[in-house]
Amino acid sequence: MLQLYFSPMACSLASRIALMESGLDARYHQVHLATKTVADGDGDFRDISLKGAVPVLVLENGERLTECAAVLQYIADLKPERGLAPRPGDLDRYRLQEWLSFVGAEIHKAFLFPTFWYKDDGSLAKPRARILQTLSVPSAHLADREFLVGRSFTVADAHLTWALLLLRPAGVDIAQWPSLARYLERMQARPVVREAIATEMVLRKAVPVNAA
Amino acid sequence: MLQLYFSPMACSLASRIALMESGLDARYHQVHLATKTVADGDGDFRDISLKGAVPVLVLENGERLTECAAVLQYIADLKPERGLAPRPGDLDRYRLQEWLSFVGAEIHKAFLFPTFWYKDDGSLAKPRARILQTLSVPSAHLADREFLVGRSFTVADAHLTWALLLLRPAGVDIAQWPSLARYLERMQARPVVREAIATEMVLRKAVPVNAA
Ligand SMILES: N[C@@H](CCC(=O)N[C@@H](CS)C(=O)NCC(=O)O)C(=O)O
Ligand SMILES: N[C@@H](CCC(=O)N[C@@H](CS)C(=O)NCC(=O)O)C(=O)O
Repeated sequence: MLQLYFSPMACSLASRIALMESGLDARYHQVHLATKTVADGDGDFRDISLKGAVPVLVLENGERLTECAAVLQYIADLKPERGLAPRPGDLDRYRLQEWLSFVGAEIHKAFLFPTFWYKDDGSLAKPRARILQTLSVPSAHLADREFLVGRSFTVADAHLTWALLLLRPAGVDIAQWPSLARYLERMQARPVVREAIATEMVLRKAVPVNAA
Repeated sequence: MLQLYFSPMACSLASRIALMESGLDARYHQVHLATKTVADGDGDFRDISLKGAVPVLVLENGERLTECAAVLQYIADLKPERGLAPRPGDLDRYRLQEWLSFVGAEIHKAFLFPTFWYKDDGSLAKPRARILQTLSVPSAHLADREFLVGRSFTVADAHLTWALLLLRPAGVDIAQWPSLARYLERMQARPVVREAIATEMVLRKAVPVNAA
């Protein structure tokens, strides 16, 4: 069975959503990121992955895969019939990769990560100024589209949904981009997305941890 | 013919290397990133891409693709016989995606980008402290490997080579990681890599621009 190392409401939420949307069973291991410990284990999370970051997906052959963009495409390709990623070779597959990169680099690493991990104002003024322009890109794209890629839900939507959920705790009002606010509402209306968030919010309240 | 919008020694260098390693002809348009202008055009680069960032690859059908991870995989898949990316479906293809994400998010967006664009010390103390741990990941991986993925050069190597080249201007001494220093030497010994860098260094001296 697949195994996912996650932290509640961290970017690994997108992988949980992908697993659930694909109908795949998995064991979930909760990681405490600040201390790098695993809730159901007794070792150092860095022994699982040198990066010390979630998500880590343990594959059926025991190998460990990291990085949202890779983990999400891997999960999607296990159940191609669910359409969570366009087929390899389709132009839309590169569009999916484009959005996974944009969310992972421009929204997550350039903004959410410093916001939740660096915290002090000195580190944050520039990323905070930049996020407004960054979010104008998906906002324009989603003005007349229901999903990021093609005409149905893909793992890129799981990734962006997670990032948009963290805007409020990061002090950014999504109402500035009506198309993003409407998109996030649509995504949260999906039963799987709602269930994944509810599961992680309960765990998050039990053990408060850094999110991004 | 494919067209690549680039800036000398910016992350678009990896796409130039990929195009040259694949033997694909392309037209190259130089962008001045600080002013968002195109050297051989007279419009705003933001009309080419709302992101205002390189690389932008113009495909044969006129569509524009952005984000290194997507552009590099697209180029690699045009000439599968060159082996610049493992075939879709191979586990190594996900390893390639994992490295493209790591270089694009953890090295580029978390460190190089703030270093060259934010500049002030207040924004940089945290990213600078973090890059040491970040680079320990590829350093450990490359201790006993010639390439990032599999047994030959892939677009992930093009991406990491670019990032490592910028460590020196970013004030980080690669000699701290002997396996990375040796890797960069090996990559720079490749004729295509050497030629791509030489081409862009000449352009960079002619028009000084921000790099990352
Ligand atoms: N580039 C990675 C980012 C992973 C990441 O930053 N995860 C965060 C949680 S959202 C984390 O585990 N942070 C703890 C740390 O980096 O020490 C990806 O796309 O998976
Ligand atoms: N996530 C993007 C990053 C692109 C990027 O940051 N490019 C830099 C040059 S290395 C740039 O054009 N910066 C100008 C800007 O963002 O205004 C990718 O992977 O392609």
